[in-house]
Amino acid sequence: MSFSPLLKQLIEAFRVLPGVGPKSAQRMAFYLLERDREGGKALAQVLGQALKQVGHCETCRTLCEKPICLICADLQRDHSVLCVVGGPAHVAAIEQTGGYFGLYFVLSGHLSPIDGIGPQEIGVDTFTRRLSLGTVKEVVLATNSTVEGEATAYYLADLVKSHGIKVTRIAHGVPMGGELDYIDGGTLAKALIDRTLV
Amino acid sequence: MSFSPLLKQLIEAFRVLPGVGPKSAQRMAFYLLERDREGGKALAQVLGQALKQVGHCETCRTLCEKPICLICADLQRDHSVLCVVGGPAHVAAIEQTGGYFGLYFVLSGHLSPIDGIGPQEIGVDTFTRRLSLGTVKEVVLATNSTVEGEATAYYLADLVKSHGIKVTRIAHGVPMGGELDYIDGGTLAKALIDRTLV
Repeated sequence: MSFSPLLKQLIEAFRVLPGVGPKSAQRMAFYLLERDREGGKALAQVLGQALKQVGHCETCRTLCEKPICLICADLQRDHSVLCVVGGPAHVAAIEQTGGYFGLYFVLSGHLSPIDGIGPQEIGVDTFTRRLSLGTVKEVVLATNSTVEGEATAYYLADLVKSHGIKVTRIAHGVPMGGELDYIDGGTLAKALIDRTLV
Repeated sequence: MSFSPLLKQLIEAFRVLPGVGPKSAQRMAFYLLERDREGGKALAQVLGQALKQVGHCETCRTLCEKPICLICADLQRDHSVLCVVGGPAHVAAIEQTGGYFGLYFVLSGHLSPIDGIGPQEIGVDTFTRRLSLGTVKEVVLATNSTVEGEATAYYLADLVKSHGIKVTRIAHGVPMGGELDYIDGGTLAKALIDRTLV
């Protein structure tokens, strides 16, 4: 190849990003060097700083540069309800609905025994400690509806029940605005079983 | 939003990359912080270093951390042939063919008057100085076959001719392995006009 050593290194470094192959990595490197050196400098600086300072919130395990995140520190919120999600992005998704006022517990992904991801890898020990404190009255399981997410929910439901705490799962069914023609059979069957009184 | 200030800054910083929207930026930030801190550190470090050290080759204007790039410094190559391309990625594309042994001249994109990109912005002044040295006997125009690329080739052809130097354009036609059913009419017409003797 005809790139200088440093340019090759930079293209290789961009490939650590998810969804970035050799062509995109090359495009990113050239774009920053030729068109946006200021933006590139800011990215290098903020990324370095974030990797040094951002850790996990001590109570909910979300990504945060302080020991306790803003949501956990908010006394206006209902500290007796705990919503369990599979990652920090899911906290953002639920917060955007504007309809939830409890706290969160953020797992590092979902259980996946074939990938060697067991309860300890996703942070279940911290979760158990949290339950033992006795402040939580309800746990809402909002893990993904994938096989891994359902398995995680099933596992956590048992754990929460063993502490004598109420446990709920977010509803499955037809998405709002969805047409029945395009819904898969499994979802439709579940929507019929879980029908609500109007 | 429920992200900490530094996390928000990091997500915003990733959006300078070409083709990266809010969702991808969020995914990149979370991925590096949760799954690949080492890769992230390497990226921040190499990016910072490249932005400081990588400049343009003095003779061909490609991206390079030395004053003269490896290709221009290679005395085995034919210094009398100069191939003009629209960016460093195009040098890599031509080098990969293994069929070109001359030198390059790398423009910063193509002429685009509506975007305010004139001859000076893409480096035509350096190109003119290069022609004046008298070492170049043929210029191969390998700019894109887009409207901007063709306009740039047309402009440069005039300039090269005014220096009394031979100027050629890479061939247009049916791509190797291409079926005639799927070739656009313009390309097919050009392929007929430029037919070669077998």
